[in-house]
Amino acid sequence: MAAAALSLDNPIFRMYMGYAFLVIIKTMAMSFVTAYFRITMKVYANEEDVAFDKKKTNKGPQIHPTVERVRRCHQNDLENVIPFVLMGLLYVATGPTTFAASLHFRIFTASRFLHTFFYLFSIPQPTRVLSFLVGVFTTLSMAYHVFAQVAF
Amino acid sequence: MAAAALSLDNPIFRMYMGYAFLVIIKTMAMSFVTAYFRITMKVYANEEDVAFDKKKTNKGPQIHPTVERVRRCHQNDLENVIPFVLMGLLYVATGPTTFAASLHFRIFTASRFLHTFFYLFSIPQPTRVLSFLVGVFTTLSMAYHVFAQVAF
Amino acid sequence: MAAAALSLDNPIFRMYMGYAFLVIIKTMAMSFVTAYFRITMKVYANEEDVAFDKKKTNKGPQIHPTVERVRRCHQNDLENVIPFVLMGLLYVATGPTTFAASLHFRIFTASRFLHTFFYLFSIPQPTRVLSFLVGVFTTLSMAYHVFAQVAF
Repeated sequence: MAAAALSLDNPIFRMYMGYAFLVIIKTMAMSFVTAYFRITMKVYANEEDVAFDKKKTNKGPQIHPTVERVRRCHQNDLENVIPFVLMGLLYVATGPTTFAASLHFRIFTASRFLHTFFYLFSIPQPTRVLSFLVGVFTTLSMAYHVFAQVAF
Repeated sequence: MAAAALSLDNPIFRMYMGYAFLVIIKTMAMSFVTAYFRITMKVYANEEDVAFDKKKTNKGPQIHPTVERVRRCHQNDLENVIPFVLMGLLYVATGPTTFAASLHFRIFTASRFLHTFFYLFSIPQPTRVLSFLVGVFTTLSMAYHVFAQVAF
Repeated sequence: MAAAALSLDNPIFRMYMGYAFLVIIKTMAMSFVTAYFRITMKVYANEEDVAFDKKKTNKGPQIHPTVERVRRCHQNDLENVIPFVLMGLLYVATGPTTFAASLHFRIFTASRFLHTFFYLFSIPQPTRVLSFLVGVFTTLSMAYHVFAQVAF
């Protein structure tokens, strides 16, 4: 019997863990970018957050374009990184070659770090849409390999 | 020792991969539906997206009811499909029968495709709420089987 | 060969299933809290939902601070619970001790139930931000153990 695909015995699973780590941490980091802008610009979503800011001016809960931009970037991560991590796990279970797996994981991870950079710094299009599409098609390529092993 | 439950050796894991594939791809497709309406109706979320549209009128970033509807549908997928895929993986690990597993996976998948159809085409209620509830209770049924195997 | 880490043969996987169950169900429950406030306060997001409410007044789709608060709480769950469940699965694969695993799972789960309580009842800060941070750092601690086993 072969070793379990989803275990430390499988070097591709260990590689997957590394890239899943990177993109999940990057996604979680968006919460802190949001918090940074909320606090420095005093743009809070809740009354109790306004009340806690001792140096508050007279502002109640409000929205701000920069905070909304960070939140859209975070949302885009949720919409793309989570599917990658889930599909990637199934992809590892299909037993890809080390070369193919590392290519998928690296391209996806790079695409998402670039996407965040392009989004947060408002880099002119089509940079952001291209990085988004590279990520999507990398996930779809893994999905294709998963589908090839399906038995309905 | 039995074969690993989360591997290609387990036909129920292969079946799970198929339905996880379908609902994840469906969720990701919502990004493209959003993009389609943003581009055809020139309703962009970012200044750099407006600037990239050569044939732009004088419109800045704005919101539109149709785009918001697609985004709510996408959000509802994130809120329901991701829990299904995660709970489904644990459910497969509990060793369900082929019949029970396929029933859960098929009903959930059908409920989400119907939910999207009802949402995007504004079909009168209670169609959408019913398809939503069928999906939720299917996931809860899998969750019940997972909980029965728990050892805290 | 050792038993597969991600299987019922591993008591830590069974423990993980229990806490993943709790936090996923808690996250899904937010949909029903949202629905409760939408229905009792007649604050709907879609025209067809307004039309379905027989006792409707003349209100169209609208937003309400309480509904938005519940939705922010739900969104915060998606941003934190999903990464926990994914990272937790990889963490279980690394073979932690029962003590370490149960400590991580219990602290995270408690932090998220408290976070929801603090959020929904508008408890004065810093209660909510502290419960949020405890959850984040618990996930990061698991992530650290995952990263230690990575082979890029």
